[in-house]
Amino acid sequence: MRRYAIIGTGALGGYYGARLQRAGNDVHFLLHSDYDHVREHGLIVESRDGDFTLPRVNAYRQVRELPSCDFILVCLKATQNHLLPAMLPPTGVVVLMQNGLGAEEELARHIGRDRILAGLAFLCSNKIGPGHIRHLDYGYVRFADFTGGVTDRMKQIAADFERAGIPVTLAEDLAAARWHKLVWNIPYNGLSVVLDANTTELMTDPDTRALVEELMREVVTGAAACGRRIEESFVQKMLADTAKMKPYRTSMKIDFDEGRPMEVEAIYGNPWRAARQAGADLPRLEMLYRQLQFLNRRKLDSRGG
Amino acid sequence: MRRYAIIGTGALGGYYGARLQRAGNDVHFLLHSDYDHVREHGLIVESRDGDFTLPRVNAYRQVRELPSCDFILVCLKATQNHLLPAMLPPTGVVVLMQNGLGAEEELARHIGRDRILAGLAFLCSNKIGPGHIRHLDYGYVRFADFTGGVTDRMKQIAADFERAGIPVTLAEDLAAARWHKLVWNIPYNGLSVVLDANTTELMTDPDTRALVEELMREVVTGAAACGRRIEESFVQKMLADTAKMKPYRTSMKIDFDEGRPMEVEAIYGNPWRAARQAGADLPRLEMLYRQLQFLNRRKLDSRGG
Repeated sequence: MRRYAIIGTGALGGYYGARLQRAGNDVHFLLHSDYDHVREHGLIVESRDGDFTLPRVNAYRQVRELPSCDFILVCLKATQNHLLPAMLPPTGVVVLMQNGLGAEEELARHIGRDRILAGLAFLCSNKIGPGHIRHLDYGYVRFADFTGGVTDRMKQIAADFERAGIPVTLAEDLAAARWHKLVWNIPYNGLSVVLDANTTELMTDPDTRALVEELMREVVTGAAACGRRIEESFVQKMLADTAKMKPYRTSMKIDFDEGRPMEVEAIYGNPWRAARQAGADLPRLEMLYRQLQFLNRRKLDSRGG
Repeated sequence: MRRYAIIGTGALGGYYGARLQRAGNDVHFLLHSDYDHVREHGLIVESRDGDFTLPRVNAYRQVRELPSCDFILVCLKATQNHLLPAMLPPTGVVVLMQNGLGAEEELARHIGRDRILAGLAFLCSNKIGPGHIRHLDYGYVRFADFTGGVTDRMKQIAADFERAGIPVTLAEDLAAARWHKLVWNIPYNGLSVVLDANTTELMTDPDTRALVEELMREVVTGAAACGRRIEESFVQKMLADTAKMKPYRTSMKIDFDEGRPMEVEAIYGNPWRAARQAGADLPRLEMLYRQLQFLNRRKLDSRGG
């Protein structure tokens, strides 16, 4: 039995942590505003795959109170990653369950290169109350190791997730996995915020449909400049799958609507800069990045942030 | 004394028409929803340069009721230009007082090439009630002749406008004049709608400030592809002038806020297509065009239009 820490018990961390605990793992949850409620009442998961409750969970306010863990799942928004170096315990494999590009490189400068995994979650879930998660759709996770290749620790965490009913895939190349995920995230997250639209609206209108595809091709261009090949068939699959989805409000749109900072640097700024350094010009991605920066700043200004 | 028809007596047509009548010209106003009010009460102009009223004006509901005129000022939005061929009287010089590109070519297919002028208005004004115009700032007009060069009829209309207190310049090249005006219109109109922002907000934020300039450079690229040179100093002047302006809500933003169709084809679609045919790729302009098309369609759909 392996021991897990969940850093950030929200829509994502609460969901995966609860599933891992339910499957018999020893799970320890870090909480902030929901601490009192969860300590007393545990977690509730409403899921497409069956609802369940965990009346009792190990809840903590401070990382230093956590026991030593095998895997530390970082389920915070990437906008909070500046807190990680001071926050992470000295041992255990750190798994960045986040969107975007570049967080592993940044973290490696602080904790070294040899204890970092990425966990790319394809999950639709919301936190609808303290300790109360609603799982809407999907859920599978793609793991990659910052050191490259399919490592033993990847196989270990994959085995635990699979026993917990979470489908898993393993990627040999972390950067390739992240660029692939950006093919979806870059068009839909940003346009959903700028145009106040869900995925179905973006796929139904001929102009935004074309723009989504143009943005996907810029991601392919950026990935290629950084040495990662994305097949045309992958772009076509993302388009077809999204066209078939129920109307979906992206995670960035939810952040924006709820007044939280958006993950603009992780999802737009870092890929844009990486591509530019590699000599690729991505004008539409850059424009969307600038539009989101403007909206992000205005939102934070209006909140006195 | 020359006779003028004003087709569309709104913020623009009402302002220039009232000034021309006040200076002694014989002016005839075509009205739609404001007809009854204006026929009874005339026009009110509140202006930075002094308020005035015209208690009695020649008001019409139908073009066919108008007397034969020397100049027919088309002050409708470009979105209504499909109505012009059936609407315009058989004689008189038609002056398109509109934004964007391509309206003269389109009209020439219907009424011939030899009775068309362009009047590019640099005017901040609003219609604040029936027959009630508020002139906020600027007001000068740049005339150009579709046949090219500085023609006698350009000099005639210029003389009338100047006598009416309206500063005028004359352009030898209509397309060059239109491309120059697009340097301002393309960034500010579109971004003000997409980001719900005024000109000051766009010029204060570093990202939108950069994006404005990038869009201006794409207009310069498009103009160059179409054989029209725009100097770098002109771009710098547009940026500096706008940074100094009071916060300004663009005309496209006003249209959008009031639920009217935006002039997306005139200001974005036509320049984009003209540049593309000439071999120039303008990705940011194209992206803004697509975003505006989406917003335009959704707005019209929601109004059952």
